Amino acid sequence: MKYAYLGPSGTFTESALLQLDGARDSERIPAANVNAALSMVREGDVDAAVVPIENSVEGGVSATLDSIATGDSLQIVAEILVPITFVLAVREGITELGQIRQVSTHGHAWAQCRLWAEANIPAAVFTPASSTAAGALGLQDPEQHHDAAICSPLVAEERGLHVLVRGVEDNLGAVTRFIVVTRPGRIPQPTGVDKSTLILPLAEDRPGALMGILEQFTARGVNLSRIESRPTGEGLGKYFFSVDVEGHVAQERVAAALSGLHRLCPELRFLGSYPAAQGAAPFVDTHNSDDAFIEARAWVDAVRARL
Amino acid sequence: MKYAYLGPSGTFTESALLQLDGARDSERIPAANVNAALSMVREGDVDAAVVPIENSVEGGVSATLDSIATGDSLQIVAEILVPITFVLAVREGITELGQIRQVSTHGHAWAQCRLWAEANIPAAVFTPASSTAAGALGLQDPEQHHDAAICSPLVAEERGLHVLVRGVEDNLGAVTRFIVVTRPGRIPQPTGVDKSTLILPLAEDRPGALMGILEQFTARGVNLSRIESRPTGEGLGKYFFSVDVEGHVAQERVAAALSGLHRLCPELRFLGSYPAAQGAAPFVDTHNSDDAFIEARAWVDAVRARL
Amino acid sequence: MKYAYLGPSGTFTESALLQLDGARDSERIPAANVNAALSMVREGDVDAAVVPIENSVEGGVSATLDSIATGDSLQIVAEILVPITFVLAVREGITELGQIRQVSTHGHAWAQCRLWAEANIPAAVFTPASSTAAGALGLQDPEQHHDAAICSPLVAEERGLHVLVRGVEDNLGAVTRFIVVTRPGRIPQPTGVDKSTLILPLAEDRPGALMGILEQFTARGVNLSRIESRPTGEGLGKYFFSVDVEGHVAQERVAAALSGLHRLCPELRFLGSYPAAQGAAPFVDTHNSDDAFIEARAWVDAVRARL
Amino acid sequence: MKYAYLGPSGTFTESALLQLDGARDSERIPAANVNAALSMVREGDVDAAVVPIENSVEGGVSATLDSIATGDSLQIVAEILVPITFVLAVREGITELGQIRQVSTHGHAWAQCRLWAEANIPAAVFTPASSTAAGALGLQDPEQHHDAAICSPLVAEERGLHVLVRGVEDNLGAVTRFIVVTRPGRIPQPTGVDKSTLILPLAEDRPGALMGILEQFTARGVNLSRIESRPTGEGLGKYFFSVDVEGHVAQERVAAALSGLHRLCPELRFLGSYPAAQGAAPFVDTHNSDDAFIEARAWVDAVRARL
Repeated sequence: MKYAYLGPSGTFTESALLQLDGARDSERIPAANVNAALSMVREGDVDAAVVPIENSVEGGVSATLDSIATGDSLQIVAEILVPITFVLAVREGITELGQIRQVSTHGHAWAQCRLWAEANIPAAVFTPASSTAAGALGLQDPEQHHDAAICSPLVAEERGLHVLVRGVEDNLGAVTRFIVVTRPGRIPQPTGVDKSTLILPLAEDRPGALMGILEQFTARGVNLSRIESRPTGEGLGKYFFSVDVEGHVAQERVAAALSGLHRLCPELRFLGSYPAAQGAAPFVDTHNSDDAFIEARAWVDAVRARL
Repeated sequence: MKYAYLGPSGTFTESALLQLDGARDSERIPAANVNAALSMVREGDVDAAVVPIENSVEGGVSATLDSIATGDSLQIVAEILVPITFVLAVREGITELGQIRQVSTHGHAWAQCRLWAEANIPAAVFTPASSTAAGALGLQDPEQHHDAAICSPLVAEERGLHVLVRGVEDNLGAVTRFIVVTRPGRIPQPTGVDKSTLILPLAEDRPGALMGILEQFTARGVNLSRIESRPTGEGLGKYFFSVDVEGHVAQERVAAALSGLHRLCPELRFLGSYPAAQGAAPFVDTHNSDDAFIEARAWVDAVRARL
Repeated sequence: MKYAYLGPSGTFTESALLQLDGARDSERIPAANVNAALSMVREGDVDAAVVPIENSVEGGVSATLDSIATGDSLQIVAEILVPITFVLAVREGITELGQIRQVSTHGHAWAQCRLWAEANIPAAVFTPASSTAAGALGLQDPEQHHDAAICSPLVAEERGLHVLVRGVEDNLGAVTRFIVVTRPGRIPQPTGVDKSTLILPLAEDRPGALMGILEQFTARGVNLSRIESRPTGEGLGKYFFSVDVEGHVAQERVAAALSGLHRLCPELRFLGSYPAAQGAAPFVDTHNSDDAFIEARAWVDAVRARL
Repeated sequence: MKYAYLGPSGTFTESALLQLDGARDSERIPAANVNAALSMVREGDVDAAVVPIENSVEGGVSATLDSIATGDSLQIVAEILVPITFVLAVREGITELGQIRQVSTHGHAWAQCRLWAEANIPAAVFTPASSTAAGALGLQDPEQHHDAAICSPLVAEERGLHVLVRGVEDNLGAVTRFIVVTRPGRIPQPTGVDKSTLILPLAEDRPGALMGILEQFTARGVNLSRIESRPTGEGLGKYFFSVDVEGHVAQERVAAALSGLHRLCPELRFLGSYPAAQGAAPFVDTHNSDDAFIEARAWVDAVRARL
């Protein structure tokens, strides 16, 4: 297997990738950004890509949400959860917080540690880096001037950086969700605890357009575990929705919801059904069970056989 | 063809039956009541029965609604509308309204002419008859004592009765709807302006149980043209619904609604799809068209082929 | 107190009336029909009327449903349940079923005993009577020819009729619901287990018109205990709905539903809130409690105070 | 008036601020980030703050969405739309694209110009800046090494930078929406074309929880112009919704929707009603007009006066 991932080496995305079976023995190619990673999949340069889609503090990752929603079709085959914790690594010679005048990291990481920084290194100026790893590596570059970097434990360890403080994140227990993306192909078999991801362009801007869509789920007892609105880029007020539902397209109620959605927005995208990384099998009412759907269809078919 | 109908001869039901192609040359058997007429169908004694189901003034005909809802399955293959107008026929020797002391007719007919009677024959006592025809025929029976009868123009003409006043009904333009009932068999082909009739037992007594049912129609843009609640006989508050919808089971949106209903109440009855006696083809949104359903199913099937 | 009731004396309606506190000492005026009883109320001739509204076997009583829906406003202040059981009373000299050639009763009673009659007196011809009491009294009239009458135990006892068979009804456990109707006035205080009755004309004939109405109830967790469609008399397909809900207009969720309904059909009629004759206090979600409504209003008022 | 805004000077946020009446004569304080700008409002250091909330290409501005959703209450009193267009400014001595090896700008700006950059300066390395203005000013700083910066026309003009290319954005017609935020106080009067902003925590995670919320809008014909889900920070799958609706709390249908929402999520936040920067007065059905609500309330009050 050959994987692309949102690089550079040492990011949380690589941590996620390393959780996959056989990943340590696979070829792993860091990509400069989400779009680049997904392009490698689309063009067949790699078998799959691992990219972040959602963070429990920062929310949806726009680059991923937008990139999988347009262009050549892709498929999500797995999700991986990674607990997010940050360390404060420092340049050689720095031994206490009071010495830090400049700190660098990626903007997203900065947002998750800002309160800690305001309280503990109030005098330090923030310099954005293109990734947490890039900020960390800068500590070993004499041409760069920041004294400290906020980064993952993995990169600090790999590069032998001096860690002054561990767990500098403001929200303990933060988690980032990553997805494994391939070209469209065979859908993983249902495990009982599955997720399906959809892209739903909102055809009309009127009271009830979104509700019409949600009704397709509710009418079959299909629960939403994530919903994000994203601009289509065609002007303020034009959205598509990126949605995760509990369940697998192999299940009748999910298939029926998809069928209803296709009537309302024929341009919807099905991005895959795959095992959920956590959670229990959803409760399903008798009238939303596979049996209920199959019997209903058989009954209607019998009626229509009399035509 | 051999027909049963709600007799006796000369009722509006026979007028309805005579509107059917070839009915004048068919064998026509009057039945004592709706149940008897439908039993002849169920037992194969006749090919079809004609019975009233709804009157624009009096509402649903309970005997019919209940009789087709239970027992061996039946099928509605056609509906017939008959304008309802009554005449006041009188016994020989009666020449003016002031002479009338007793008037007879069926209770339903009496209900539709009561205001006229109160205004024009206020002194007359009402004697119920088992049918309008029976009341009318009684005028020729010396053993009976009523001076006048309210009946259909047909029976007055057929029996040579003297008609004192025409159009004694309170609501001009009243119409009764009759149905042609057979044993279950081939469903008439769709004409574009069709109706389907369903029996829907309400499984649960909770806020939203009825709404859950109606949603199955609304979600597919299927219009209801009639809805009646009827007691199941199992105690106050236990109902079934008798429903007519605009459309034919051959149409995808009607079939989809039926399928959804079957999940909610597996004991539902489909009583038939048949040409509507009046009205235009219903407006159907693009997303409820046959094409939308067929394309949606094909799309979902293509997705599931990847399983 | 002076009461009108659907007569004649000895009917189930009188049984219902006699259940009211103080009714035995009140003046009780039998009316020839439901309309006449309600007219006496409207014109101030009596304080209240007792009329049947629903039977657990036969369904809604059309005359009552229609008469309270139109004309001068009326108010329902109480409901009474009466178990319905019939006896077969016979003319003097009749001692066994085989002697009965003609049987009389009201059409509704006949409908409820037909199976018994078919099985036990198959040779007997049915003659409709204007009420069960009238049929029963006819047994003592030498000018009438029926041998038996189906009537209430009350009338048989009061008139000293010979009862050949008790409990001839087909559905054991049948119940009729009666209502006590006054001119509009003070609404009975809530007891915790109450009912409210509404008349809802359906303004539009489109998919979802009825659902729009039901949503007003469901959105506030208000349960329907009865719904009947009745023709408005303006042609097939034009209905109003007669509805009972669990709850009292003094409760916020019921008042809110009424307010929402008034927007959709400004011609609705509120026919009263009154103690339910049976049942338990309905379950009410926290967000539909009086407190939730009162706090929500206070919050919105506080926001709008900043205008 | 004293304003804070997302600085530094020369950003699109300052352009937005300068559109306000009297803004050119007001005191304008650049803030390092959105949170800092809103803190100045909360603490009374300024009268109002101007911050971005939504971009037609990049979507919602998370920092703003999150910061106004929590902490001391704030109020939105106006919105401002600013068309987003970027220029490529270059360091002295650079005269053609081929000379550019390093380009700097804010990550959001980079995202909006990436395709242009890939096509026109493929060899240039991207260096993130803390704002577009900071990147631009760096061109005049000999200690920094980037050759070009992507920035607003305003900052290029103010600082006398050499502009090599105008309109380097990938999406022509991109717009960013800014809001003017104050401490809670008097709500601007309705103009007929207004918006209201709400924060709605989703109390429950079940099929229909979001639908229950949307129903409160749909039931009153209140249109949503924006909906964003944001993580509450309490773990994956815990969201609040940030919502803009068309209409003003002074309008009955909006007030009624708010009241309904308060019952479902008592912790909701009302962030203000204010004139919409564009659009027409929304279509309002008769049954959702102020009159319909006022008449319905009066009718219910009259009924309840009889209690």
